Amino acid sequence: MTATALATADFDLHPQLAADTVEVDRWTCCRVLLIDDATYPWLILVPQRPSLRELHDLSADDLAQVTAEIVRASAAMERLFQPDKMNVAALGNQVSQLHIHVIARFEDDPAWPKPVWGVTPAIPYGAHDLAARIEALRGAFGG
Amino acid sequence: MTATALATADFDLHPQLAADTVEVDRWTCCRVLLIDDATYPWLILVPQRPSLRELHDLSADDLAQVTAEIVRASAAMERLFQPDKMNVAALGNQVSQLHIHVIARFEDDPAWPKPVWGVTPAIPYGAHDLAARIEALRGAFGG
Repeated sequence: MTATALATADFDLHPQLAADTVEVDRWTCCRVLLIDDATYPWLILVPQRPSLRELHDLSADDLAQVTAEIVRASAAMERLFQPDKMNVAALGNQVSQLHIHVIARFEDDPAWPKPVWGVTPAIPYGAHDLAARIEALRGAFGG
Repeated sequence: MTATALATADFDLHPQLAADTVEVDRWTCCRVLLIDDATYPWLILVPQRPSLRELHDLSADDLAQVTAEIVRASAAMERLFQPDKMNVAALGNQVSQLHIHVIARFEDDPAWPKPVWGVTPAIPYGAHDLAARIEALRGAFGG
């Protein structure tokens, strides 16, 4: 196996993250997940490495790769959704497995200008809208 | 002037960030500020570049430097405060000038497990405690 394949072999996605999201893509380091909440365009990036909690736990190479993937996701979402602001955050108070939120925010969204967490219950996408959103995101990521 | 000095020459700290913080240090890219709220150990890193709003607006070199400074701050705070979790976030819904929160969180802090924003009014440090905290942070950063 390659070094990357070796590193990802022991990775297991936290069940809460799995329950709240659908998978959009797998990049070199991160698994790219969409939160199933139609209220906000909201991605979660999860570095596919075992036992990570903090950004500073990443190796230097992985940190550079994760950072590149965060800005790839953030720039793509800005192009696609033309939000008023992007929010990027690694919190992990409830699920400590390292994961990074990348959220497109609008001045007319229900949480603005506060952070999105805990403000409104998730409104799941319908099947058609979910498929369309995933396809649009993959298109914006550019292959 | 060096390239860094040229880039920082046009930088002005947003007045709201200036009002809410005290300066702890100036690093290669970021100004390191302490939020004057004794409830949480809470730093703000502000890349000293004009007209930035998003992480993906940073040049590749600046992004690498800012990332290194984020993990430097986060690792130092973890060593110093031994929190239950670090929170790192670039939100900017209220102050759009790019700034990164680096916050040490504890299971017995008043916002846990929610994010800290908007939960409790800031409790300013007393003068002695503020000076002691700044000195401890500088020591943890390691020069």
